[in-house]
Amino acid sequence: MPISGFPEWLPPQRMIEQFVLDKIRSTFELYGFAPLETRAVEPVETLLSKGETSKEIYLLRRLQEESATSDDQLGLHFDLTVPFARFVVENNGKLQFPFRRYQIQKVWRGERPQEGRYREFLQADIDVVNRDTLPFHFDTEMPLVIGDVFRSLPIPQAIIQVNNRKVCEGFYRGLGLPDTAQVLRTVDKLDKIGPDKVAAALVETAGATDAQAAACLKLAEISASDGSFVDRVRALGVTDPLLDEGLSELLQVVETAAEHAPGLVVAELKIARGLDYYTGTVYETQLRGYERFGSVCSGGRYETLASVGNTRFPGVGISIGVSRLLGILFGQNALTVSRSVPTCVVVAVPSEDKRSGCDRIATALRRRGIPTEVAPTAAKFGKQIQFADRRGIPYVWFPGSPDTVKDIRSGEQVEASAADWTPPAADLQPVVSAG
Amino acid sequence: MPISGFPEWLPPQRMIEQFVLDKIRSTFELYGFAPLETRAVEPVETLLSKGETSKEIYLLRRLQEESATSDDQLGLHFDLTVPFARFVVENNGKLQFPFRRYQIQKVWRGERPQEGRYREFLQADIDVVNRDTLPFHFDTEMPLVIGDVFRSLPIPQAIIQVNNRKVCEGFYRGLGLPDTAQVLRTVDKLDKIGPDKVAAALVETAGATDAQAAACLKLAEISASDGSFVDRVRALGVTDPLLDEGLSELLQVVETAAEHAPGLVVAELKIARGLDYYTGTVYETQLRGYERFGSVCSGGRYETLASVGNTRFPGVGISIGVSRLLGILFGQNALTVSRSVPTCVVVAVPSEDKRSGCDRIATALRRRGIPTEVAPTAAKFGKQIQFADRRGIPYVWFPGSPDTVKDIRSGEQVEASAADWTPPAADLQPVVSAG
Repeated sequence: MPISGFPEWLPPQRMIEQFVLDKIRSTFELYGFAPLETRAVEPVETLLSKGETSKEIYLLRRLQEESATSDDQLGLHFDLTVPFARFVVENNGKLQFPFRRYQIQKVWRGERPQEGRYREFLQADIDVVNRDTLPFHFDTEMPLVIGDVFRSLPIPQAIIQVNNRKVCEGFYRGLGLPDTAQVLRTVDKLDKIGPDKVAAALVETAGATDAQAAACLKLAEISASDGSFVDRVRALGVTDPLLDEGLSELLQVVETAAEHAPGLVVAELKIARGLDYYTGTVYETQLRGYERFGSVCSGGRYETLASVGNTRFPGVGISIGVSRLLGILFGQNALTVSRSVPTCVVVAVPSEDKRSGCDRIATALRRRGIPTEVAPTAAKFGKQIQFADRRGIPYVWFPGSPDTVKDIRSGEQVEASAADWTPPAADLQPVVSAG
Repeated sequence: MPISGFPEWLPPQRMIEQFVLDKIRSTFELYGFAPLETRAVEPVETLLSKGETSKEIYLLRRLQEESATSDDQLGLHFDLTVPFARFVVENNGKLQFPFRRYQIQKVWRGERPQEGRYREFLQADIDVVNRDTLPFHFDTEMPLVIGDVFRSLPIPQAIIQVNNRKVCEGFYRGLGLPDTAQVLRTVDKLDKIGPDKVAAALVETAGATDAQAAACLKLAEISASDGSFVDRVRALGVTDPLLDEGLSELLQVVETAAEHAPGLVVAELKIARGLDYYTGTVYETQLRGYERFGSVCSGGRYETLASVGNTRFPGVGISIGVSRLLGILFGQNALTVSRSVPTCVVVAVPSEDKRSGCDRIATALRRRGIPTEVAPTAAKFGKQIQFADRRGIPYVWFPGSPDTVKDIRSGEQVEASAADWTPPAADLQPVVSAG
């Protein structure tokens, strides 16, 4: 029986997922990110060090455990950032910094099933981490990598919304609201509860006047795909050194993206991100036409990803929600694959006593990189063609003197030798496409 | 802190692991196996349906679970066969049979840490499953796939040891020992306790006479890389229809392998496999020179992998213990990789104000598939070359008029344009090799 929150794809969907993962991985590698895979479990104290998500952890115990204390308590990781931070601390003497890594793994969250959320899902993360300080230009690189990933896929255009915590915090402080965390949390509810309720909450819980609340909302309204957001923020009349720093950083992200990938990045000053370890740049990503499904790729800068004694490890990273992305696209039938198996050619078997000759043909084709199956039984050729057709396999090979190969889509059948016949490049692998 | 039994590789080792996984996957796909990934968890009843491994299961509970019964009990899968069988039953109406799938995933076993075994490890499985009956020729295909996988890797030669339960059971029955399961279990201890203790145990627990025990040991001694094992079994003077069937099947496996992959397969009549669902062919695999580490790839035929009502789903499959294989080879420093990052070129940064020009060079190289990083800081060129050297990155690019690119291994530096310079194919990706 299916278990709520634990999605499973049929093989054609898994083929699409692998195609997506291959594109993600090859793009990450083009940017020089090294692969990392961490264990699925962490000590529960490590997981609980991010208090906010403590309610969502799956703990492990052995079925025949003698007593509750016989094992250190282990839990499944709920993201890839906490294990990465732990890995960096544990192996900092063996790593070269700045350390660029990607990590593509399942994560688990013990959500209540009735919320209809995934409890097991796949994430693809990149992070750059350094000792002591990390130059800001790495913050400008993250959207470019993600832009390249999304452009390599047959899916709607991705728009990366960027903000900077320093802009918000500097603005609130400059405005005379010292509890910037509370203001940020409240403004973060804008899309859920609307501006009137946010304004009221700012007055009630953050000690804002009506004018201050209105200014916070004005800031959150600002959105621009170029550097014009800077003047619009300035026009609100608030000054603060942290605000200046934030505006300068955000401008760098927007301008770098405008040069390398026009249309990819928008400065969106209402973006806050729930998790509280971000300290500067924050990213969210929407697909055009799929905005209602929320962000499919998020991240940001953390001044202290990890620390060892007096050494701090700042980082910046971004995470593609692969299961979330595919769940949305599969739900809209927005991705298809040309066949349900990798097989390009089925070798027909004229009779069981000829099977070893058919195996030799298959071996010759495979040696030249052509995915090949031999028909499971020496049924009538009509049945064997049907075997291929039902799976979307384009070619059936008929052993004979000479051999022939048939494109079962067009019906065209030609003489061929397993030593040199090659299908058109487009037929070699299954093709993933939109709609 | 490392957790006993949960191995983690550093990035260079993970690059080797990915290289191995890519070879495994592409070989599986050349044979037409379709990809499948199942969820990490199963209901505990599903896991316990294979009684033998019940003690090794990790159960899950949510940290803030209200009561022990609020969730159906879930456990992490301990192999990929049980989830595959469940998936086939659940989706049998949506699958095309015979269904060939591969599955490469982590599995978990709650072993006691002091046993020094892996508690999390990676397996790569192929299985073919059909409705009602599955032709025997699929049993002859499994070793060929695995042989191709191992030949594509820079590792010692793999020898697949094959046996057939029908040979053993038919022989024991024909010999007059009706409790064939007990005989099999006892003979399976041969490598651990030696022939004398096995003979004694056969007399004690399986009701064998000394002569019968001796005959069982004689059978277990037979080993051959060709069909000669048939005559040697016949020479022991036992007859039984099941024995005939088993010998004929085993002969097919050995002869098919001898034709397609000489030296790959050995009929080894002492191989039994612990798990009790195998009903015919069984496989184990050793690496030459690494025999003492045991099998790195095992499997067999199961007449009833799954069933739905009156419909049986027989299958045959084999599983590569990827973590086990790599753990052994890493432990002997038997695999190396030419660099610790995917990066082929580092673009040097003459000064921070020239960074955007360096980014443009990197973009041009990446668009042509060349993994490229831009240096993290505009340090002295000596430092930037050191950055590349420490990671094994072969090329450093110097922006200028004209640009130049330096092979830092040879010191050779040539004029180059990012629009058309291409490294030698051998330098494009990290190279994995033996020793």
